[in-house]
Amino acid sequence: MKIEKTPESSVITRTPFPASRKIYVPGKLHNISVAMREVSLHDTKIHGRNGAAEPNAPVTIYDTSGPFTDPDLEIDVKKGLPQLRSEWIRARQDVEQLDMISSQYGQQRLSDSKLDELRFAHISKPLRAKPGQNVSQLHYAKKGIITAEMEYIAIRENQRIEQHIGELNGKANALSHQHAGHSFGANTPKTFITPEFVRQEVAAGRAVIPVNINHPESEPMIIGRNFLVKINANIGNSAVSSSIEEEVEKAVWACRWGADTIMDLSTGKNIHETREWIIRNSPVPIGTVPIYQALEKVNGKAEDLTWELFRDTLIEQAEQGVDYFTIHAGVLLRYIPLTAKRLTGIVSRGGSIMAKWCLAHHKENFLYTHFEDICEIMKAYDVAFSLGDGLRPGCIADANDAAQFSELETLGELTKIAWKHDVQTIIEGPGHVPMHLIKENMEKQLEHCQEAPFYTLGPLTTDIAPGYDHITSAIGAAMIGWFGTAMLCYVTPKEHLGLPNKKDVKDGVITYKIAAHAADLAKGHPGAQYRDNALSKARFEFRWEDQFNLSLDPDTAREFHDETLPGEGAKIAHFCSMCGPNFCSMKITQDVRDYAEENGLMEESALVEGMQEKAREFADRGSEIYL
Amino acid sequence: MKIEKTPESSVITRTPFPASRKIYVPGKLHNISVAMREVSLHDTKIHGRNGAAEPNAPVTIYDTSGPFTDPDLEIDVKKGLPQLRSEWIRARQDVEQLDMISSQYGQQRLSDSKLDELRFAHISKPLRAKPGQNVSQLHYAKKGIITAEMEYIAIRENQRIEQHIGELNGKANALSHQHAGHSFGANTPKTFITPEFVRQEVAAGRAVIPVNINHPESEPMIIGRNFLVKINANIGNSAVSSSIEEEVEKAVWACRWGADTIMDLSTGKNIHETREWIIRNSPVPIGTVPIYQALEKVNGKAEDLTWELFRDTLIEQAEQGVDYFTIHAGVLLRYIPLTAKRLTGIVSRGGSIMAKWCLAHHKENFLYTHFEDICEIMKAYDVAFSLGDGLRPGCIADANDAAQFSELETLGELTKIAWKHDVQTIIEGPGHVPMHLIKENMEKQLEHCQEAPFYTLGPLTTDIAPGYDHITSAIGAAMIGWFGTAMLCYVTPKEHLGLPNKKDVKDGVITYKIAAHAADLAKGHPGAQYRDNALSKARFEFRWEDQFNLSLDPDTAREFHDETLPGEGAKIAHFCSMCGPNFCSMKITQDVRDYAEENGLMEESALVEGMQEKAREFADRGSEIYL
Repeated sequence: MKIEKTPESSVITRTPFPASRKIYVPGKLHNISVAMREVSLHDTKIHGRNGAAEPNAPVTIYDTSGPFTDPDLEIDVKKGLPQLRSEWIRARQDVEQLDMISSQYGQQRLSDSKLDELRFAHISKPLRAKPGQNVSQLHYAKKGIITAEMEYIAIRENQRIEQHIGELNGKANALSHQHAGHSFGANTPKTFITPEFVRQEVAAGRAVIPVNINHPESEPMIIGRNFLVKINANIGNSAVSSSIEEEVEKAVWACRWGADTIMDLSTGKNIHETREWIIRNSPVPIGTVPIYQALEKVNGKAEDLTWELFRDTLIEQAEQGVDYFTIHAGVLLRYIPLTAKRLTGIVSRGGSIMAKWCLAHHKENFLYTHFEDICEIMKAYDVAFSLGDGLRPGCIADANDAAQFSELETLGELTKIAWKHDVQTIIEGPGHVPMHLIKENMEKQLEHCQEAPFYTLGPLTTDIAPGYDHITSAIGAAMIGWFGTAMLCYVTPKEHLGLPNKKDVKDGVITYKIAAHAADLAKGHPGAQYRDNALSKARFEFRWEDQFNLSLDPDTAREFHDETLPGEGAKIAHFCSMCGPNFCSMKITQDVRDYAEENGLMEESALVEGMQEKAREFADRGSEIYL
Repeated sequence: MKIEKTPESSVITRTPFPASRKIYVPGKLHNISVAMREVSLHDTKIHGRNGAAEPNAPVTIYDTSGPFTDPDLEIDVKKGLPQLRSEWIRARQDVEQLDMISSQYGQQRLSDSKLDELRFAHISKPLRAKPGQNVSQLHYAKKGIITAEMEYIAIRENQRIEQHIGELNGKANALSHQHAGHSFGANTPKTFITPEFVRQEVAAGRAVIPVNINHPESEPMIIGRNFLVKINANIGNSAVSSSIEEEVEKAVWACRWGADTIMDLSTGKNIHETREWIIRNSPVPIGTVPIYQALEKVNGKAEDLTWELFRDTLIEQAEQGVDYFTIHAGVLLRYIPLTAKRLTGIVSRGGSIMAKWCLAHHKENFLYTHFEDICEIMKAYDVAFSLGDGLRPGCIADANDAAQFSELETLGELTKIAWKHDVQTIIEGPGHVPMHLIKENMEKQLEHCQEAPFYTLGPLTTDIAPGYDHITSAIGAAMIGWFGTAMLCYVTPKEHLGLPNKKDVKDGVITYKIAAHAADLAKGHPGAQYRDNALSKARFEFRWEDQFNLSLDPDTAREFHDETLPGEGAKIAHFCSMCGPNFCSMKITQDVRDYAEENGLMEESALVEGMQEKAREFADRGSEIYL
């Protein structure tokens, strides 16, 4: 593997996944190649057939890990990732390269020589829409244009399942009576995803493609309920300030395990420089909550925030390449007292900041009064709105209350305004909600927000398990994902208690991949079940290595297995650790199947006929065939 | 703490939970005292009120840990737990003490001097129903008798919430607009649980009380969908044969974290002796799968199993005190070929054993043909049926298929036969089921099995995460628990991969307590939300210690917090690690509330009026009140 061994890249995880290789699928409309991961499988040994074997087709997996898992690529975090999209962007001829950074703060930081060793070495001048132009994917989609990003997404979402679907249905037919070619959920396309379908969903506002023109390194992905359910991982600089390379590794690590987007919630010093490093090295869209940085700029005094300061922060971040902004524009002055009677009041940090500002000035939220000004900035860089739920419930007792749903209605009004400007928009949701109140959240969101994609935090389904809130929330996340939520913001085991470490981030991401995939299965997304079937078949056939390699976390699966049965021998053994060598339910099942097949007893009718005559013959063989 | 420090008891975990004490609530109908755990809380410091404080009532928690967490009790595993129920049993005057163990195998083991040092020292002669008598709780319930067990359960299920409910509704009123006194789910009683309600549910077959007359050490509990959702933990002797004390500790450990019943799935040598030790020291009901031991007796050759051998095994275990038996009597000869086309065939071990036997002999399952003989044994000791789902699906692709539902219908027929004999019965369920197919399982079970309690394994909602199947299954378990499943069999992270260690058992139990409690909340069980509210209030008020002590796992919650903010100081600090000292959303919320209260702005209307005049005054104060 040609991996440059600089101190920087040495902290970056670049190990490829076992038995996996990167494949690049070419486009038809555009000159693009879509990265995917292909897992190769061992042959199936057919027992009682003199060791005859039949091959198992490799499994293609949707891959968020980016170039880091391609050993053939040299990566230097100081130079950043290859700019996959820059040609696509320039080819549209609607952007101009600025002579200098527009934001005052950005200029300030750039001219501060004390920051030189912190600064990313290769800062390129920012792009911006030419005067009068709108560079958002929504704008193109409405004009009927299928962009390279849209075709990339169509190919990526299909995971080459079109090559497997015959096989899949074949298997399903053979193996699952009523699921063979079962009809897909109301929320999902009946066939494979086409570039035109992607365009239609974006044009309708039902899906969002977060792709800032200043983040050309990102691999296009889509957030919409008629596509694979996505997950977001939050990262942030630790109290103990870690090196910038370590900050980059946090993002690389989260993407490796399946994060579709990263939110950088860093606070404190040097977040401008840290963000630059993260964006330049991130293969996934980056989201931020700009009010956090704005608050830093006024030393944490919310009442000192101003529109001008906030506006400069938006431009600063937009020109660095942030793909979506969480904006808490729905926290209206008149809603704030609705939270006073709550058990846990306002738990959203952004919501609290705006509430504090509103009460301090007795004015309406400036994010609301300046919303159209914000839209003008968003469409000049194609930054998407993630309209924040500043009044989301912080506990079971506060779920689905007046404050929460009042804000949701306002987010719906704001969505219409954003769409008027062709600015892509997603809606953030709760939080803490017991299972029986989850569906109402989805229904009200669809109703009030005109089907704009829903992006929820969990929700946590109980408050009694701090230390396990990745699990309390995965239950709610899987359900609301099934109901139609497009992206799930992960929760780590440290939620409510402390700052997540590397293990917590991995636990949170894997747990949310489980919730998202469970939702894809329930929605009947084309091909979602293919990976489950391939892994289950491997399990049934004791292809242990294939079972590990097809799993979300091959390292842990292998490690757990080896704790009980170490050694290579065990991995080809025809029994599992639960039953031991004398007896294994899976082996017996295989015997039952062989017997039924050999004796034409695959149907009950055949059984009744065939049974008697076979009985004696079988008894004579002393049923040795079973051992 | 007066804890005997013998080598045996030294391996047993006896540490009480932090800030918790055992309380014993007396009965009214019977001379009983019901064990519960009471967690004491700190006062609430009211800010901006010159340190005024208001007390928080202690929280009572349903306690499965048994006498082991009562430091005032001396426990010697060699002598076993106090026999809580023996007087209740004898007082009914329908049992006789046998002169000797009835089973041939039991006698054999007893007379084998080589086993002397393995044998439990204080084996008492078994009890059995007098000729013609039926000692099952179902039999008493049908006769209108409210047993001591039934009253114990009524008191236990209420968790003294009747003392808190005013407070609870008060809180709910104050804190959650539409949930104040919200109506309970269709599945749950509208008021507190009474002994008569318990009797009615048992008499109707909708609930089961697993209490073998030979397990007087157990604290009565109930399995039924109109009660708290229960969880089961499986334990078994490890390949590396651990000491018998270590086997006992496995059960104690699982009960400590919340297991409501334990299934002993031990295989190999000395399981008879191991089981005796576990039962004598178990405060919860013990379940087994007798066919496993029967298979051991024929050296793993399923085709050598006979009814006589199985019958002797049932009596052997019934006289030791096993409270429920999993019996795979629904695996009928004609259903076996229905599994041949499955992706993963038959994955139930018991199902495979019976399938192998049926095919080897071409006879109908002897558990089915001898079902009434089995009932005669069950009612003589009050052992409950757990009718096994030997044909449950082993993967997503096989969910809800013909083999599974055919067996379920047969389990329904068998339930009617069991009830004819007044034998208590629960029904086992899947397994692996995607979210959109879970509800159908519950509906078919209710329909075919006349509302007998459902007891499911998970179900796992995806197959792609070996190493995390406690989570893939907790999603399905929470949902099916909400839909009406009465008990959830836990899954550990080692599922499909290896044998669970102590950490895996704890992870599995805590994860399933989360699923069960989330279901109780969704069903609206009286008082289920009380613990959530108390913990959330503690969280909001930065009572860190109370938050830890009210959680399912106080040790882990405290440990995670201390990783980021060690030291006592941090635990009384008025900020959490996520926001830092300068800014905390929860602090601001409290400021908003104080402000709204002080200025009579609790209602939107009041806000509009009050806002203007307050504005200037507030601005003058430079909003120092907020800092």
